[in-house]
Amino acid sequence: MRNLKITLEYDGTNYAGWQTQKLKTIQATLEKTLRKILCEKIKVIGSGRTDAGVHAFEQVANFKTNSTLSPKRIQSALNALLPDDIAVTKAQEVDLKFHAIRNVKSKVYRYTILNRDYPSALLKDRVYLCRFPLDIQSMRREARALVGRHDFKAFCASASSAKTTLRTIKAITIKKIPYSHFSGPQKQRDNSLIIIDIQADGFLYNMVRSIVGTLIEIGRGRFGKGSLRKILLSRNRSYAGPTAPAKGLCLLKVNY
Amino acid sequence: MRNLKITLEYDGTNYAGWQTQKLKTIQATLEKTLRKILCEKIKVIGSGRTDAGVHAFEQVANFKTNSTLSPKRIQSALNALLPDDIAVTKAQEVDLKFHAIRNVKSKVYRYTILNRDYPSALLKDRVYLCRFPLDIQSMRREARALVGRHDFKAFCASASSAKTTLRTIKAITIKKIPYSHFSGPQKQRDNSLIIIDIQADGFLYNMVRSIVGTLIEIGRGRFGKGSLRKILLSRNRSYAGPTAPAKGLCLLKVNY
Repeated sequence: MRNLKITLEYDGTNYAGWQTQKLKTIQATLEKTLRKILCEKIKVIGSGRTDAGVHAFEQVANFKTNSTLSPKRIQSALNALLPDDIAVTKAQEVDLKFHAIRNVKSKVYRYTILNRDYPSALLKDRVYLCRFPLDIQSMRREARALVGRHDFKAFCASASSAKTTLRTIKAITIKKIPYSHFSGPQKQRDNSLIIIDIQADGFLYNMVRSIVGTLIEIGRGRFGKGSLRKILLSRNRSYAGPTAPAKGLCLLKVNY
Repeated sequence: MRNLKITLEYDGTNYAGWQTQKLKTIQATLEKTLRKILCEKIKVIGSGRTDAGVHAFEQVANFKTNSTLSPKRIQSALNALLPDDIAVTKAQEVDLKFHAIRNVKSKVYRYTILNRDYPSALLKDRVYLCRFPLDIQSMRREARALVGRHDFKAFCASASSAKTTLRTIKAITIKKIPYSHFSGPQKQRDNSLIIIDIQADGFLYNMVRSIVGTLIEIGRGRFGKGSLRKILLSRNRSYAGPTAPAKGLCLLKVNY
């Protein structure tokens, strides 16, 4: 029996999130494809679930197999058979004890807002269009209240089954960057993309999206100075802003 | 009668290119939407056709109308009614003599190659995956032969109806940049994206894609030193490399 760790990239637009359910999910798609390649029933453990429409730049998963195929061969076979919106960017054999959920030290999520008054055709499934000018200075100032170990109940969807709502946010960075059709030394036109990176030891259900929804209210001037700390302390979801749409969210990195 | 100039971004994945035909095209989609907004039959003139699957970051078009709606209002109405893979990024009233094809001074196309041995899920419709390591030094050296006024018959699809195959390439730049899920100050993982920008006074049918296909043969070491100059002088399409796939191509800029 061997334990394989794989790193995945996916475009979540056409999936009902990570976990196996009745709908098409990343996990189910992987398990079905691995079963074809390895001729055994495979259970894939992802570092965490991503919601429908959420993307991943570096999601990590592991599975146990009796196959003797090399990780490189399994990666190639997966990339040949998986739909083109899922790619395996790395595959390696790890200790049998490695567990993609239990061994997580921290994760980084990125939320991308397009802050201008007309949409983007090329990033349509990757960014959330916010037409109100956002003041990122106040967003940054308020965001500081979230850093550290806190009870994030105010930013947790009621559907959550988490035992505790205590989490540690290690860092939040908010940056304005030029819009461009995609990566690279850019044609700079405007600084209309706002990226919010949040690193934490774990995330509650809809935590990033409700924090971002609240930061947008702050950036628009609807919530004033000190509001984020008050919302956090209230432990009441109804005081926070709306949940920002899934398509702006991307799992950037999982640290072990 | 007023003349409106609009600047467009589109994801060409789901279109049969620019020009109105039986299939779904960018031009036909624009004309249909403008007819709804302005209640008159509108003829849209694009700076040039883009092929099926080719994207645009800044395509430019103009159309004449008797409407008194402001350009800003027309832009908003277009963005509200167009499918989300077409966006109008600018709209302005221009001189009645302005003509989006005839007044073009130069255009810039960008071709993006993903040069590694596994695919990308997030850029799947934007890059061409080339698994052979490419030597960009020799690609750069050979590309110099194309700069200037030349007969580009060797890089023109036979289906072309162009009167002359003389064109002036003003610049070709070839750069390696880090792969990243999309724009912004990047998580640098590897330098696996190669972007080829070509600026010319005009382009023949499939010209960029056949130049890129030839540069890839050079990068792989299949065509040696001086080969690009020889192919150019041959004026024979069959000596050049294959036509690179449409999805890696993007119209970056039209200069007037």
